[in-house]
Amino acid sequence: MTLYEKLAHDIETSIRRGVLRAGERLPSVREASTNQGLSITTVLRAYGRLESRGLIESRPQSGYFVRAVETPRRRAAPGLDLEPTRPVPTSAHVDVSRLVLSTLRSIGTHDAVPLGSPYPDPSRFPFEKINRYAYAIGKRQEAWRVTEGLPPGDADLIRQIARRHVENGMEVDPREMIVTVGATEAINLCLQAVARVGDTVAVESPTFYAMLHAIERLGMRAIEVPTHPEHGIDVDALAALLDGHRIAACMVMPNFQNPLGFRMPDERKGALVDLAARHELPLIENDVYGELYYGKARGGTLKALDTHGLVLYCASFSKSLTAAYRVGWALPGRWRDQVEKLKFLNTLTTAVIPQRAIAAYLEHDGYERHLRAVRRLYEQQAGMMRAAVARHFPRGTRTSHPAGGYVLWVELPEGADSMAIYHAALERGITVGPGTMFSATDRYRHFIRLNYSYAWSPEIEGALRTVGRLAASAAR
Amino acid sequence: MTLYEKLAHDIETSIRRGVLRAGERLPSVREASTNQGLSITTVLRAYGRLESRGLIESRPQSGYFVRAVETPRRRAAPGLDLEPTRPVPTSAHVDVSRLVLSTLRSIGTHDAVPLGSPYPDPSRFPFEKINRYAYAIGKRQEAWRVTEGLPPGDADLIRQIARRHVENGMEVDPREMIVTVGATEAINLCLQAVARVGDTVAVESPTFYAMLHAIERLGMRAIEVPTHPEHGIDVDALAALLDGHRIAACMVMPNFQNPLGFRMPDERKGALVDLAARHELPLIENDVYGELYYGKARGGTLKALDTHGLVLYCASFSKSLTAAYRVGWALPGRWRDQVEKLKFLNTLTTAVIPQRAIAAYLEHDGYERHLRAVRRLYEQQAGMMRAAVARHFPRGTRTSHPAGGYVLWVELPEGADSMAIYHAALERGITVGPGTMFSATDRYRHFIRLNYSYAWSPEIEGALRTVGRLAASAAR
Repeated sequence: MTLYEKLAHDIETSIRRGVLRAGERLPSVREASTNQGLSITTVLRAYGRLESRGLIESRPQSGYFVRAVETPRRRAAPGLDLEPTRPVPTSAHVDVSRLVLSTLRSIGTHDAVPLGSPYPDPSRFPFEKINRYAYAIGKRQEAWRVTEGLPPGDADLIRQIARRHVENGMEVDPREMIVTVGATEAINLCLQAVARVGDTVAVESPTFYAMLHAIERLGMRAIEVPTHPEHGIDVDALAALLDGHRIAACMVMPNFQNPLGFRMPDERKGALVDLAARHELPLIENDVYGELYYGKARGGTLKALDTHGLVLYCASFSKSLTAAYRVGWALPGRWRDQVEKLKFLNTLTTAVIPQRAIAAYLEHDGYERHLRAVRRLYEQQAGMMRAAVARHFPRGTRTSHPAGGYVLWVELPEGADSMAIYHAALERGITVGPGTMFSATDRYRHFIRLNYSYAWSPEIEGALRTVGRLAASAAR
Repeated sequence: MTLYEKLAHDIETSIRRGVLRAGERLPSVREASTNQGLSITTVLRAYGRLESRGLIESRPQSGYFVRAVETPRRRAAPGLDLEPTRPVPTSAHVDVSRLVLSTLRSIGTHDAVPLGSPYPDPSRFPFEKINRYAYAIGKRQEAWRVTEGLPPGDADLIRQIARRHVENGMEVDPREMIVTVGATEAINLCLQAVARVGDTVAVESPTFYAMLHAIERLGMRAIEVPTHPEHGIDVDALAALLDGHRIAACMVMPNFQNPLGFRMPDERKGALVDLAARHELPLIENDVYGELYYGKARGGTLKALDTHGLVLYCASFSKSLTAAYRVGWALPGRWRDQVEKLKFLNTLTTAVIPQRAIAAYLEHDGYERHLRAVRRLYEQQAGMMRAAVARHFPRGTRTSHPAGGYVLWVELPEGADSMAIYHAALERGITVGPGTMFSATDRYRHFIRLNYSYAWSPEIEGALRTVGRLAASAAR
């Protein structure tokens, strides 16, 4: 095969397998040329062949898109889409934090390809502007006083966050809001407000380890609920659990869940909120990826649907604006006063200067413009990452189809041990997120999580090739 | 009486009552003139009279000092020195945080005379320099990564803190250190590492409410131990308690305790550490005021005496360098790994830029010079505040004799309700710290805490006169 024939063949395979779906944009000719080390002419010839075969189409001013052709339907693509999960319905003691900390450290201390990072590429953050605000605010003595940042938090920041929620279609009473040290603290305080040592908390399966951490910290138990890779937590399965178990709270991530990346459909969000109301079940909603949606509309929140004060909403700026400052917030519904008190007890205040610097940025600068740029980038890179996994990973590999965020959840063939792959990759200067971080019951051993927020590069392509090879030999 | 006779009489009374002690410096002639609205001549005549009567002496280049004369010995000065406390020896559920939060808020939101503030005057902080470091560090993209600040904390900051400890005579293994969100988080994590829900924790009486907050947050119980106003926690009384009760930990502030301001004598520190070793009792040592000593030598720490890993040492920069950043640390002895894990679970990381900005300041600037200046100032103002209390407060008022820090603990005549005084003062634009904040058992109702870190001014003098008048009418 010539180079252009090989490229055309790879893309066709991705389309046939459902990795690239109808309506999705291909990398531009220039990007494909840079990323794959091919000449512009080669890429143009490959795209031309695919176009002449009716597999893609070029749209003026927009680029090349996959056509809705007679490829097998997504759900039918054998071995490529994830199945809904079926965890064991018993509660478990949680102890994942050591694994997560050592993984995060390896990302921080090694100069490694950050496929395992849970954080977006910081070079996309508009931090120069925020840093300048911080400096200017830091010159004012009143910003040096601890009392200025006392719970519930800086009034300017609270107003700006509330305004942002309203722009996104969620009415918010600013008096409900508590500013926290990142979403981590928000989740911890909300869970502590609604449940006690020894209580059982329902979570998605797989679940974001930040949720597991909160359960671990407070000496509670987790019970994993079956979760659909595109629809989210199985509300019927949760309802069945509620009949048989005393569940103190349910922690979910309805928008762009980490690691699955789904957006829970609106009617399922409504069903979950209704179920919670029937059982007086507190719902802790982690929306840290909410701003990073693909397509036109931000996913709605459980909070916006809740009329009983049962949703404790948590979010932060660490994924969407800057991770350098550790500023998050909670809207804790009927537990507002308890969460405010726990915030005061836990860390007294969130530092004033970061709060005011972010408030100034939100008021004066282009937060929405910044977000539009990263959303577009992440969506594009999601497709590139999926295609690269299809190219380099062994047969039988399945991937998520993220609707937002910047991580891909990859199921390797049964038998592949993601911890072994994690260590082998680390030796080669590459990090991946091992799947067991996402379970209280040691599930997801043959899964890894990949971060696609970093600009596509031959280095990333090469790292994926290496990880694919490791996965192939591990699966044998 | 003429003005100069009245001033001489007031000072003499203060000396006779032991408010001003042998060796203490009087305000300079200029200061006394400004503060009391008297002419330089009047002050000079008053000082001259006191000198001729052998009560004070002038030392070249230094000012006026109280002489060691035949005044009644301190301990014998009736009604002016505090008695050791005798709390009830039963454990209590703790619920003080709402009172403390509302008090702190009143300090922050009102433009009030901050006699009730727990924080030092921020205008003394060298924050301009730290702010410049933060800006420079914030320009570097690697500082935007959460992973850079992961527990145990930024390596540069840990090295600088360890170096500072060594300079102060305490050998520290940097690998033991965990950076936290202020001492508040350090205390919380240390307590969580050594005790469980429902456990009983021994504390000084009165005790700094930050200790009570940690106990409250974790649903534990507090038992107050008799405490001497100048020697600290009664080690024998604690030993007796240990025989009768299951005590999970003991929380103390051996250096410049808030509110009493004592420096526990070295032999008592040793006795406490020995007692802890005999009972395998974890000691949580809060040393946030350790750098703010009067006189020549920093008080030793329990940590330096501990050979069993039983002392969990906590400190921060919020009282000595800047409160704007919320950076503290713990040296948790044998619970080091648990505290590191709890830090990760509680707030993930402490923000990187503040950690590095403080590290840069410690490395390159005059931390010791800054501290020398504030120590001298606080010591001088301690005397001025005590003298002003003697001038303006009702008969029977007793005060602490701080050996460091910047707060004075004032016992009003029995029957005075400090909450009523707090509210009445607030209406007049003055805050005071109500005594009940310092007890789990609603003791210290007729005590208030006064902050003397702010530059002495006619406004402060006037505020003390007002509070004294409120105390006098409350005590009637």
